[in-house]
Amino acid sequence: MANAIQFYFEFSSPYGYLASERIEAIAARHGREILWKPFLLGIVFKQAGTGPLLDVPLKGDYSKRDIERTARLHDIPYHWPPRFPFLSVNAARLVYWAGPGMAPALTHAFYRAAYAQGRDLHQTAVVLDVADEAGLDREASAQAIKDPGVKARLAEETQAAIDLGVCGAPFFLVGDEPFWGHDRLEMLDRWLETGGW
Amino acid sequence: MANAIQFYFEFSSPYGYLASERIEAIAARHGREILWKPFLLGIVFKQAGTGPLLDVPLKGDYSKRDIERTARLHDIPYHWPPRFPFLSVNAARLVYWAGPGMAPALTHAFYRAAYAQGRDLHQTAVVLDVADEAGLDREASAQAIKDPGVKARLAEETQAAIDLGVCGAPFFLVGDEPFWGHDRLEMLDRWLETGGW
Repeated sequence: MANAIQFYFEFSSPYGYLASERIEAIAARHGREILWKPFLLGIVFKQAGTGPLLDVPLKGDYSKRDIERTARLHDIPYHWPPRFPFLSVNAARLVYWAGPGMAPALTHAFYRAAYAQGRDLHQTAVVLDVADEAGLDREASAQAIKDPGVKARLAEETQAAIDLGVCGAPFFLVGDEPFWGHDRLEMLDRWLETGGW
Repeated sequence: MANAIQFYFEFSSPYGYLASERIEAIAARHGREILWKPFLLGIVFKQAGTGPLLDVPLKGDYSKRDIERTARLHDIPYHWPPRFPFLSVNAARLVYWAGPGMAPALTHAFYRAAYAQGRDLHQTAVVLDVADEAGLDREASAQAIKDPGVKARLAEETQAAIDLGVCGAPFFLVGDEPFWGHDRLEMLDRWLETGGW
């Protein structure tokens, strides 16, 4: 996995969802693995002194339009989740708890539940439903999201991401080359194609 | 000019400089005119409660790297201006005062002075030098940047931009379709190609 694309994402990020639908094709084209790394964007916001894009005056309306337009461009089903932003901590914890083998399927399950199926991941019961459908044991998942070790893992992963320079979501690392935003996927693709410039 | 691409930019914006080096080729490919619209991004920052990207903790270092990388990708000469951000109000005023016929050449002259030639547009004397080299009368330019009517024009253009939803720089309008950021130029190009989606 030394050559893996590190994919940092926040479930309560529409651009993260869009990126999750496209990153595997890009990785496959270049024979790369993906490390799926959910993290808590709210912690980044606190350290950067910023906040959710949709809450910024002037920029919110534009961003909503851009997200919907970008989804249409790439033929990705998109609906606004019933509650947005939503609490993503439980979904993120389960991705780490379930492990790397489950991470791609579980990430897609959570993202699609929120942005394609209109389900409210803010509710723990919905997170557990989705995890159950993806193949995780519901009762074990319910225990896991309250487990101190699982909680600590997500906190550590979030801090490690920030320490690596992850300043927003989605965010990608190819070696030590950083790419921030769904809108850098074409550049990332070209970087892998050319070896950089 | 009904079909013109409206190009809103701030001289103290590296991504605006990069966009200024690419927008004419895109417009020409689709037979479109360009309306060159400098404005004061600082006024947007005040209304949005945000600030310069490079000043945001965590995001500043990434952004510097991304700007330099993007310039290399497009083979655009790029050097950080000796002072950054810099006071762009005088250059912006002169673009409106000189008029639409001079706007493209004058915009390139100011942007290239700052980002290709390492000149400090923060200094009024340097702004006047560049204007002079671009063909404006130096003494008349010196009067113009202090003229109440010229000052009011830039203030009005800035407010008009904000009223149209311009929430950052560079920003483009194709009809009423908004595109924010140098990184939306490919999408803008495709929008013109396809008529939208």
